[in-house]
Amino acid sequence: MQLVGMLDSPFVRRVAIALTVLDVPFTHLPLSVFSTFEAFGRINPVVKAPTLVCDDGGVLMDSTLILQWAVTQSARRLQPPGGPALQRELRLTGLALAACEKAVQIVYEHQLRPAGKLHAPWLDRVTGQLLAACALLEDELVRAPLPDPAQEIGDAGITTAVAWDFMQMMVAQVVEAARYPALAAYSVQAERLPAFVALPAR
Amino acid sequence: MQLVGMLDSPFVRRVAIALTVLDVPFTHLPLSVFSTFEAFGRINPVVKAPTLVCDDGGVLMDSTLILQWAVTQSARRLQPPGGPALQRELRLTGLALAACEKAVQIVYEHQLRPAGKLHAPWLDRVTGQLLAACALLEDELVRAPLPDPAQEIGDAGITTAVAWDFMQMMVAQVVEAARYPALAAYSVQAERLPAFVALPAR
Repeated sequence: MQLVGMLDSPFVRRVAIALTVLDVPFTHLPLSVFSTFEAFGRINPVVKAPTLVCDDGGVLMDSTLILQWAVTQSARRLQPPGGPALQRELRLTGLALAACEKAVQIVYEHQLRPAGKLHAPWLDRVTGQLLAACALLEDELVRAPLPDPAQEIGDAGITTAVAWDFMQMMVAQVVEAARYPALAAYSVQAERLPAFVALPAR
Repeated sequence: MQLVGMLDSPFVRRVAIALTVLDVPFTHLPLSVFSTFEAFGRINPVVKAPTLVCDDGGVLMDSTLILQWAVTQSARRLQPPGGPALQRELRLTGLALAACEKAVQIVYEHQLRPAGKLHAPWLDRVTGQLLAACALLEDELVRAPLPDPAQEIGDAGITTAVAWDFMQMMVAQVVEAARYPALAAYSVQAERLPAFVALPAR
């Protein structure tokens, strides 16, 4: 299979690292949904990253749906099968994805519009949502740390670490690292894993 | 469990109908992420719809992650277990979710900003992506129709029908119904199901 999209997207990087952890072979085609919009559109006319081209040519989109497919191609898993452990995994993943989404909205507001078209109430709204997601993630990690990522990293750990790295790369002035020591510490550990080192966001 | 969010959000309605199809009991709390932002924030500070409050108080967000949890609470399933049938289910679901996302972006651009802050290149971009997703969904349904929804509707059928209804409600001038006869016909069938009738978007 082929993963299409740039690793500076946290959604693309989440999938790339998860495929690696799952031992699912893939090639990576780093097309941008902006600078290479037309080339991307020839593979997926919706121009949505990540896009996964399956071995039979089928084209999937949405990082969570792509991972649902990927786990069927692997003997490993990314999540506990059920119960409280799965619920917590999904809670952490949902918080990390929300943080990514809100950070992306802040980045888009600044990068894709002329300054006169910025809308401060929108920026205030999504900034508040972003900080709420980060605070809840930090609380979760303080209350019950994620397992050592080198032992058994799963979807929640991957998505949390990728979200943190993205936020520090793109909106570090909004998400002040010193306020989230547990998140920062987990990210340091995760970024040392071979899958993370091999697939850097920058 | 309690589902929080308004049914005029396609992501909330997707989950509400899926929970019903799964026979998972839930109560519905129709809070708005806009007009009742503070009340919503007391349940989930990220103010993201849908939010699911589990029976033990755990709070989940993101419609796809919520459905991953919901299926573990049911004897039924929403998707084939694997293989080409699952891949197609995920493709259709991904296209329908992309259509929802792009339609929401168009609605937000018009409803949440003063007219002077609209940015035409952004609207052009997401409109093109929306129409591409609709065209691909239509192609998929023409090529191989979804099963009669009364027999066995799953995530792809629910999400496709909910997306169509949302688009016709909110951006009908962009997504002209006459251009997508297979989508329109499938939606008519699905909207007759008791779960759809009981959970209307408007």
